[in-house]
Amino acid sequence: MAKIDSREVEREKLAILRVLGSASGAIGSQVIARRLRDEYGIELSERAVRYHLGLLDTQGWTDKVSRRSGRVITNAGLEELGNARVTDKVGFVSDKIELLAYQSTFDVNRQEGLIPVNISFFPAAQIKEALKAMAPVFRAGICVSDKVAIAESGGNLGGVTVPDGYTGLATVCSIIINATLLKAGVPMDSRFGGTLQYRQNRPWRFSDLIHYSGSSLDPSEIFIAGRMTGVSETARRGSGKILANFREVPAMSLPLVRELIAKLEKAGVRGLVDIGESGKPVCEVPVGLNKAGLVLCGGLNPVAAAAEAGITTRNRAMSGLMDYRSLMRFSEIA
Amino acid sequence: MAKIDSREVEREKLAILRVLGSASGAIGSQVIARRLRDEYGIELSERAVRYHLGLLDTQGWTDKVSRRSGRVITNAGLEELGNARVTDKVGFVSDKIELLAYQSTFDVNRQEGLIPVNISFFPAAQIKEALKAMAPVFRAGICVSDKVAIAESGGNLGGVTVPDGYTGLATVCSIIINATLLKAGVPMDSRFGGTLQYRQNRPWRFSDLIHYSGSSLDPSEIFIAGRMTGVSETARRGSGKILANFREVPAMSLPLVRELIAKLEKAGVRGLVDIGESGKPVCEVPVGLNKAGLVLCGGLNPVAAAAEAGITTRNRAMSGLMDYRSLMRFSEIA
Repeated sequence: MAKIDSREVEREKLAILRVLGSASGAIGSQVIARRLRDEYGIELSERAVRYHLGLLDTQGWTDKVSRRSGRVITNAGLEELGNARVTDKVGFVSDKIELLAYQSTFDVNRQEGLIPVNISFFPAAQIKEALKAMAPVFRAGICVSDKVAIAESGGNLGGVTVPDGYTGLATVCSIIINATLLKAGVPMDSRFGGTLQYRQNRPWRFSDLIHYSGSSLDPSEIFIAGRMTGVSETARRGSGKILANFREVPAMSLPLVRELIAKLEKAGVRGLVDIGESGKPVCEVPVGLNKAGLVLCGGLNPVAAAAEAGITTRNRAMSGLMDYRSLMRFSEIA
Repeated sequence: MAKIDSREVEREKLAILRVLGSASGAIGSQVIARRLRDEYGIELSERAVRYHLGLLDTQGWTDKVSRRSGRVITNAGLEELGNARVTDKVGFVSDKIELLAYQSTFDVNRQEGLIPVNISFFPAAQIKEALKAMAPVFRAGICVSDKVAIAESGGNLGGVTVPDGYTGLATVCSIIINATLLKAGVPMDSRFGGTLQYRQNRPWRFSDLIHYSGSSLDPSEIFIAGRMTGVSETARRGSGKILANFREVPAMSLPLVRELIAKLEKAGVRGLVDIGESGKPVCEVPVGLNKAGLVLCGGLNPVAAAAEAGITTRNRAMSGLMDYRSLMRFSEIA
């Protein structure tokens, strides 16, 4: 009999929890097995999935809704997912970026398809105040796009259910740029997320940064939770700190990159803050030889402004995909 | 004439600001030149230092107190220091750990010398409440040592002046363990800071982590600011998340490491949470072949408990050195 590697089992178990955690409702072993293969490259038979589910039920992390409709993840399961295997989670942010870029089907010419979004939750009682704090930020263009989606508690945003007592907001994530480049055959290296200082309405320099490869947490969520941004101030006075991230592309792809960025702008995606030349620093960040740096605006900047106004926000950066055509202009909802 | 490298000049200028930023009062070009050499390995003549200071004065970042006593850093200078050259700041945390370990003169046998400390500031009006929140944490031993120092506004802690309206608290930093090992010839690799989950009074696993080499911010300060800890809960119920960090030593040094840790414990330094065997994971973190992992308690855990109680804290992790004999037991001040 083959020796069972307990770390391998642990990895499979967690992948199943992740699949359930990102599902919008109950799903069965067949769907789970397919998603494991497509999203995690894990080949498990339906029978093996059912075996794991039995163990997960015992631990209280999953729950059998019915024989027909399958399993859901429990609150204990979600908590386990949040804490488990931190070494798996390092690099998880980079993986998530890659996965979402790959899954996006956005066609920049036809302006349709699935695009990557961040989901944020605001206490329902504070949503008016939150929208008010976000409006000037959208107007100043400190966002990836002014297209958003909003849902009341119980509603669904990109496969995520809005919890009781909260209102959910989906904002376009800067991974849309990775996705568009990837589809055109340009590989994009996502290096770090940081806070970018503006002065006189111009991007200046990064003041803090966290590498995606060295953290189990999303940098934007860290900077929002730690109140390290000054997005409202930047929208108002042209100087302050906003959420931004740094990417690298092969320098020889620059002409194509510029062309794609121009098309994205036409489609209403204006996430590019600055772009460098071959081997030249951008916003004081050096790049490798034969590389060019891109500074992208953080999609969560409007939400950061709401947090600055003292509103409690819960964020799930890079949390799913939504149909571009289902989004509305922020000005239509606020 | 030699070509002046503007990045080199920038680096020298920042190093001077850092020297001034860590000084307890005004210092002159002679002292600055010596500290640049000793602490940053930068060889500059006094004349060159004075030239830089002239430029820094012009930018409003330093101020000439008198010809005799020299320069101080201004608030604008401190702000510049906080924002400048983020790529210099990545790895700055690792550098700070190394520097403090090297500068510490603590003699574990004689129980005397300079030890590395964290400095925290609390609003003076809330210090009683803060001490109350910290007491159970010190009692539960969720700290590096129960030795502390306290100072009112205007007072000095390890070379740092306590600002107006605040009370300062110095806590022993886990770098004391790096320092003790280093002096005995054991190299210690500081990998990351994280939140460590406890259950049933036992360390279990890291739930989040940030690599020192991938961040411009100190991980402990991030976890405190983002309210990601449950230190009070851990002190009370034996389960929750505390600040901890992960180090690696060569596996062959383990017998010596255990001996030194035992001596440190006798001296009242109990920062070790867990220690692994050669090549074996500790708290679910894998280590390299021929390496052993050490999980150390974060020195700022008591302060995290105060932050959990809603008290505003300003922290400067790993901020200086203090004479071990000048510290008092926490129970004597609270």
